[in-house]
Amino acid sequence: MSRRPMVRPGGRSARVQEAVHTAVRELVAEVGRDALTVPQVATRAGVTPSTVYRRWGDLKELLSDVAVERLRPEAPPEDLGNLSADLTAWAEEFLDEMSSPPGRAYIRDALLGDPDGGNGGQCSAYAAEQIDVVLARAADRGETAPDVETVIDRVVAPMMYRILFRPDGLDPAYAHRLVTGLLTAGA
Amino acid sequence: MSRRPMVRPGGRSARVQEAVHTAVRELVAEVGRDALTVPQVATRAGVTPSTVYRRWGDLKELLSDVAVERLRPEAPPEDLGNLSADLTAWAEEFLDEMSSPPGRAYIRDALLGDPDGGNGGQCSAYAAEQIDVVLARAADRGETAPDVETVIDRVVAPMMYRILFRPDGLDPAYAHRLVTGLLTAGA
Repeated sequence: MSRRPMVRPGGRSARVQEAVHTAVRELVAEVGRDALTVPQVATRAGVTPSTVYRRWGDLKELLSDVAVERLRPEAPPEDLGNLSADLTAWAEEFLDEMSSPPGRAYIRDALLGDPDGGNGGQCSAYAAEQIDVVLARAADRGETAPDVETVIDRVVAPMMYRILFRPDGLDPAYAHRLVTGLLTAGA
Repeated sequence: MSRRPMVRPGGRSARVQEAVHTAVRELVAEVGRDALTVPQVATRAGVTPSTVYRRWGDLKELLSDVAVERLRPEAPPEDLGNLSADLTAWAEEFLDEMSSPPGRAYIRDALLGDPDGGNGGQCSAYAAEQIDVVLARAADRGETAPDVETVIDRVVAPMMYRILFRPDGLDPAYAHRLVTGLLTAGA
């Protein structure tokens, strides 16, 4: 990430990023991730290979950036009227998305082409922001709520650990149990 | 892992594995992981490149297997006389090893070159086996103890999540807090 210049929305830098990210997504769908090369991506995006190398370093870092973009949440978590319902719904959806084959591929890409740890941190920040929204709503309702770091330890981390290290048998009931275990412990 | 034949200790297959793993470890130390190639490894190990490709598929899978070997615990956890002390000592050591630069590199290698998920599963199995030893000792002493899956969710997963996604500021006190939080909740 340290190579990447600041991106002004609408500027040339933002247009290049958009074109290159789109090229990667299209080519991954067409030829598969393992056959992808930087010159191919550059041709499709209408830029020179050196533009890609200068900005992203190598293909792994480019795939990592594209993955982080794909993992960005599209909307705030649903408001179902109470903390337990909100957190359960969020956790079930998170587990469903992240444990899907594309979700797992994006997580791996994000972690692996990430020499300075910034992209892994960004993935975690996305989850923390969504949880913050859920917890702020609970506070507004006067509900007792744990802090965001506790939710990460008790709900996000176990789901992500099992997605990465032991993906068999994950289901919504697991997400539900984690949330119930946290909230009934009297946080 | 599916490509790998059964390894008989002392057989040719075991000797090849040992020679190739040793070659990888030496060359990673000498030229670095990014410059490593299969032909280099084969030459150093005294085998043909096709032997390596046939058995490991590609360099990523080979690095993944070497990483899993390096992550195998060398001894059972220390017996300090009670569950809280045993689990705290184990968690502190696990965090220290896995969050070190070589530990993090091995975890990433293990996860990355792992198309069928077997190597990630093996890493998790190593942790589960060590925890099993700690919990069995607690049961022998008549102590109340959580089950191994609960220890994975409450202690191993948060440490591993933070190592991978937000490595800043991890210290033994964090491992200690996770264990205390689990055991004082009255598991």
